[in-house]
Amino acid sequence: MIPQDYPRVNIEAVKPQIDCGRYPIKRVVGEKVAVSADIYKEGHDKLSAVLKARKVGEKAWQESPLTLALNDDWYGEFTVTEIGPWEYTIEAYADHYRSWVEEISKKNVPGAKLESELLEGMAIIRKSAAMAKGEDRARIESIIGAMESAVGAGEQQGAVDLGIGGVLHSLMARYPDRSEGYELAPTLQVMVNRPISRFAAWYEFFPRSQSTTPHKHGTLQDSIRRLPEIKAMGFDVIYLPPIHPIGHSFRKGKNNSLTAEPTDVGSPWAIGNEHGGHTGLEPKLGTWDDWDRFVATCRELEIEIALDYVMNCSPDHPYVTAHPEWFFHRPDGSIKYAENPPKKYQDVYPLNFGTSDRAGLWQEMLRVFLFWIDKGVTTFRVDNPHTKPVAFWEWVIGQVHRQHPGVIFLAEAFTKPKMMRLLAKAGYAQSYTYFTWRNEKDEITEYVNELTNGEMKEYFTGNFFANTPDILPPILQYGGRPAFIMRAVLAATLSSVYGIYSGYELCENAAIQGKEEYLDSEKYEVKVRNWRAPGNIVDIITRINQIRRESPALHRYNNVLFLATDNPNIIAYAKMTEDRSDIIVCAVNLDPYHQQVATLQIPLGSFDIGWDEQYQAHDLLSDRTYRWSGPTAYVELSPHNTMAHIIKIRRW
Amino acid sequence: MIPQDYPRVNIEAVKPQIDCGRYPIKRVVGEKVAVSADIYKEGHDKLSAVLKARKVGEKAWQESPLTLALNDDWYGEFTVTEIGPWEYTIEAYADHYRSWVEEISKKNVPGAKLESELLEGMAIIRKSAAMAKGEDRARIESIIGAMESAVGAGEQQGAVDLGIGGVLHSLMARYPDRSEGYELAPTLQVMVNRPISRFAAWYEFFPRSQSTTPHKHGTLQDSIRRLPEIKAMGFDVIYLPPIHPIGHSFRKGKNNSLTAEPTDVGSPWAIGNEHGGHTGLEPKLGTWDDWDRFVATCRELEIEIALDYVMNCSPDHPYVTAHPEWFFHRPDGSIKYAENPPKKYQDVYPLNFGTSDRAGLWQEMLRVFLFWIDKGVTTFRVDNPHTKPVAFWEWVIGQVHRQHPGVIFLAEAFTKPKMMRLLAKAGYAQSYTYFTWRNEKDEITEYVNELTNGEMKEYFTGNFFANTPDILPPILQYGGRPAFIMRAVLAATLSSVYGIYSGYELCENAAIQGKEEYLDSEKYEVKVRNWRAPGNIVDIITRINQIRRESPALHRYNNVLFLATDNPNIIAYAKMTEDRSDIIVCAVNLDPYHQQVATLQIPLGSFDIGWDEQYQAHDLLSDRTYRWSGPTAYVELSPHNTMAHIIKIRRW
Repeated sequence: MIPQDYPRVNIEAVKPQIDCGRYPIKRVVGEKVAVSADIYKEGHDKLSAVLKARKVGEKAWQESPLTLALNDDWYGEFTVTEIGPWEYTIEAYADHYRSWVEEISKKNVPGAKLESELLEGMAIIRKSAAMAKGEDRARIESIIGAMESAVGAGEQQGAVDLGIGGVLHSLMARYPDRSEGYELAPTLQVMVNRPISRFAAWYEFFPRSQSTTPHKHGTLQDSIRRLPEIKAMGFDVIYLPPIHPIGHSFRKGKNNSLTAEPTDVGSPWAIGNEHGGHTGLEPKLGTWDDWDRFVATCRELEIEIALDYVMNCSPDHPYVTAHPEWFFHRPDGSIKYAENPPKKYQDVYPLNFGTSDRAGLWQEMLRVFLFWIDKGVTTFRVDNPHTKPVAFWEWVIGQVHRQHPGVIFLAEAFTKPKMMRLLAKAGYAQSYTYFTWRNEKDEITEYVNELTNGEMKEYFTGNFFANTPDILPPILQYGGRPAFIMRAVLAATLSSVYGIYSGYELCENAAIQGKEEYLDSEKYEVKVRNWRAPGNIVDIITRINQIRRESPALHRYNNVLFLATDNPNIIAYAKMTEDRSDIIVCAVNLDPYHQQVATLQIPLGSFDIGWDEQYQAHDLLSDRTYRWSGPTAYVELSPHNTMAHIIKIRRW
Repeated sequence: MIPQDYPRVNIEAVKPQIDCGRYPIKRVVGEKVAVSADIYKEGHDKLSAVLKARKVGEKAWQESPLTLALNDDWYGEFTVTEIGPWEYTIEAYADHYRSWVEEISKKNVPGAKLESELLEGMAIIRKSAAMAKGEDRARIESIIGAMESAVGAGEQQGAVDLGIGGVLHSLMARYPDRSEGYELAPTLQVMVNRPISRFAAWYEFFPRSQSTTPHKHGTLQDSIRRLPEIKAMGFDVIYLPPIHPIGHSFRKGKNNSLTAEPTDVGSPWAIGNEHGGHTGLEPKLGTWDDWDRFVATCRELEIEIALDYVMNCSPDHPYVTAHPEWFFHRPDGSIKYAENPPKKYQDVYPLNFGTSDRAGLWQEMLRVFLFWIDKGVTTFRVDNPHTKPVAFWEWVIGQVHRQHPGVIFLAEAFTKPKMMRLLAKAGYAQSYTYFTWRNEKDEITEYVNELTNGEMKEYFTGNFFANTPDILPPILQYGGRPAFIMRAVLAATLSSVYGIYSGYELCENAAIQGKEEYLDSEKYEVKVRNWRAPGNIVDIITRINQIRRESPALHRYNNVLFLATDNPNIIAYAKMTEDRSDIIVCAVNLDPYHQQVATLQIPLGSFDIGWDEQYQAHDLLSDRTYRWSGPTAYVELSPHNTMAHIIKIRRW
């Protein structure tokens, strides 16, 4: 009836914390977790508090102190040093020694009799002595001895001085009596992944388009030959659309036409035929040996492989006959193809994640992930995850991470905000974003702040793709080369993780009239390109990626600081390292048609630069250097010249 | 390994919710709970959601629909109709019928073959028919019959029309198939109390000061004679400082002097002597019969009794000998008196809530509450609750409420914000506030907004005392009568619960030099007053209380809307009922020394008054009526005339 135990100290409002601790926050190895909490207790005891962190499964906690600011707000931090799930908690306790020091200090007025208080203090100190080790113990005991002698000799002031002295203070801090304390339970969780999940440049390409002979179906061998070029452009992650056998039934022709010519190669997203399904390799791409060589070459070049993970089956997929119950059925028993009324996708059967054989289907989906991990894939770009139960993702990602905690999942979810957030909470390290559709200065500012400055930064990393096989936004269709440069700079500097889909470097911008889809899309045909076609921006992309690699400020995701400018067509923002050793200012012309000029407000205070100090502004894109001073700077950006500055700020 | 069950619908971010549902929100009988939530699901199903509420212990839920606004935000509300704990939750489900209506409507283009879809629809409708009752069932079945006939006759359009028609729509809404749904668990809690916990005028007085003969110790009989006068002033709650026997040892003299004269009556907060302790009655106040008559008179007058609950014991308290283990001890075994170094309170022993006999002490504290409830007390003003474990309060208030859910607890905690909030979360219906120390327009605005406009409004009700026996703020000491009027209007209109300590109506303002304590405080002596002394503001207090009673807008706590004024010395705010049938505008001069004038911004839109409309401004304090029009109004407030307007706005 009477509570047997209760929190002796109130520990509340611990941040960061996602949905009351239901989901972990995310970090990469080497990053800090800065923690704040409300910690307080009834009465007048002094409190102490420690932050405790460890990898899940380890016994010992790494402890660091929490510091009291104002009004019961406490702060601390720890660093995560290994991949995998971590947990942290807070232990806080009434610090009897420090409370006693405060009490006796207040009471120690001329004429005060403090015998009783000294006895209390010595009891507290003795308790810590009993916990102390080796030399420390001896030192505490000797001070107790000295206090006893002083009390015996009637030297009250001497005893007090010993009891509250600095030497004892630091010894006592090492052996506190935490018996009147509380440890927050349950613990809070951190998913720790590899740095590449937070800093990477992605390049998407279709292996079948990598031949050099027009119309010829490319192979993995062709792709291997292409890899050094991609690496030279500065990309870290190669993202491959599905490479599985492609269905025959209802195969789509060029430009998504309903009838395919016999020579049409079909959409890689209609997976499965007599050669296999999700663990199969399209024979036209080559053999498993070719795949292994492809993986080996990527590894040599330090390129990671991201594979598309698509839960569609063509009507010819082996699952259709082996597991018809995994699909949706019509009243007459036939299997339903995908629809988005009035659109019909007869070449694709969606899987039913609520099937009566849920265990069978979910385990098979897990097996596919593990299969490809075994084949050298380290990242999965998951197609349309928002149409499957989030509980499935939480389960399957959890299962993969138990064996392979470093595997990265990217959610290809273009849907409403809450679902996009939930997928990230449930385990996706990265997510596609609305970046492609944010063109105005205000909307870019608001969106990037939402992603990188609010609670989302704790669990959601936006991978800013400048284009995708499905998205050729109007700004690129109409803005031409200057727009391609502008959007590449924005993607590569607003987020630490960004990507392009091949053809971007050639400023390909032929669209289907009135849509944001590519004309003659590679999704339905082989496309052989001249990678050095006139007007290409390969050198600029290469330079951007080089700047990113060399600028630690651009490795961080959560450090975008927008700068005021007096022109709505020029957006400017700074990124810096915490220690200000690297400060980058980006200024980008959002208007691909006209020259724009602006005065930027330079936040000298944030840069640790004095009001009257001169500093160097080195535009890393053009390699020009300017001498700036004061809190404003003038920029001039033109489609005919340069669309953007990426400026390194250096103090002289 | 595979999750056996999982939420088929995501229900998140339900508000109001205190600390992840750890604590209940509070309401009074008849109030609404407006609920919002994020509700969404993977895929394209249409969703429906219901809000479910009930008194804890009841089986049946009261259901009301939740409505989708934008971007997966849903809204609904319910009304609490009985005192005691309530709970509520949300159930949401994929609405197969509405999803089907949407699907078939989209597919129903010229030439479409919808036989399979119609079969699916009829299966869905049949499922609801099986759940339907009486006439409804027959009606649904007849529509299914008609659909079957139409399909049989090849009249596809006719079958579709029947299936998606309005008649069937409303029938289906009554019998939805909720099998693919989710009910949020655990439920969220609401503590429902009596309206007087949210709307009341408190009056604090010392019964021993109620005699009419100078220096004579007053009695409960004297107090009974005074009650009609207090009721006539418009007060609903009488708050009595402790009425228990007062200790002799170390009794404090007048003005808190260390040595008491034999005639000194001592502080009622030093509880306990040979006549009893916390369940005793000070003999000088009268007998238990007198107490019962006092209670009966209060009941006749519809006045509630709030009793001070003070966890102090004098050294003469019966607990000291019966339960020495309930107190704090020095190393020599003697009991510690209260201290706030260097101050000493030798007449008071604090209780140790962490005593080894915690069960004994906590149960006894509960017994004291129940004893006084049995004696007619309905409210407890708890002294210094922030020096006892909050877990104790949560337990003891919970125990009291199990038997007496209508008992009201007021926390006398003047401490740091987080502890004040936690006490309210743990069960205190009301709390003292920092109001007494908020004098400037900006600080009043900020503080009242914090209390009544933020999350605190869900669980924390600030009882705005204009003075207390411990707090005579400088504004009253120096501002005189105009300040007393000004602060009474502020307290009585900014919060729906407010109070004064007797003497306020006489503008008593003699303080100890440099402190905010009363000179010759009633805490240490009997104080017989002339309740009609010159300069009293009894009529004004009476009028304020009358206005409060007659203005439904002032019964609400959370409806303060501050109005802009062009003078920092004049604060203005509106309070209105939700239906705008009562609109009150208060304008108060914060400067008790000078006349101040200001132009108020009148929020015509919020008042539902047209831009060019004339409206009546009836100052209820002066009973003068003005004709206003347009979005500004001029006021002139002076210490020599009127310090405040309480204006009822009426459309002509």
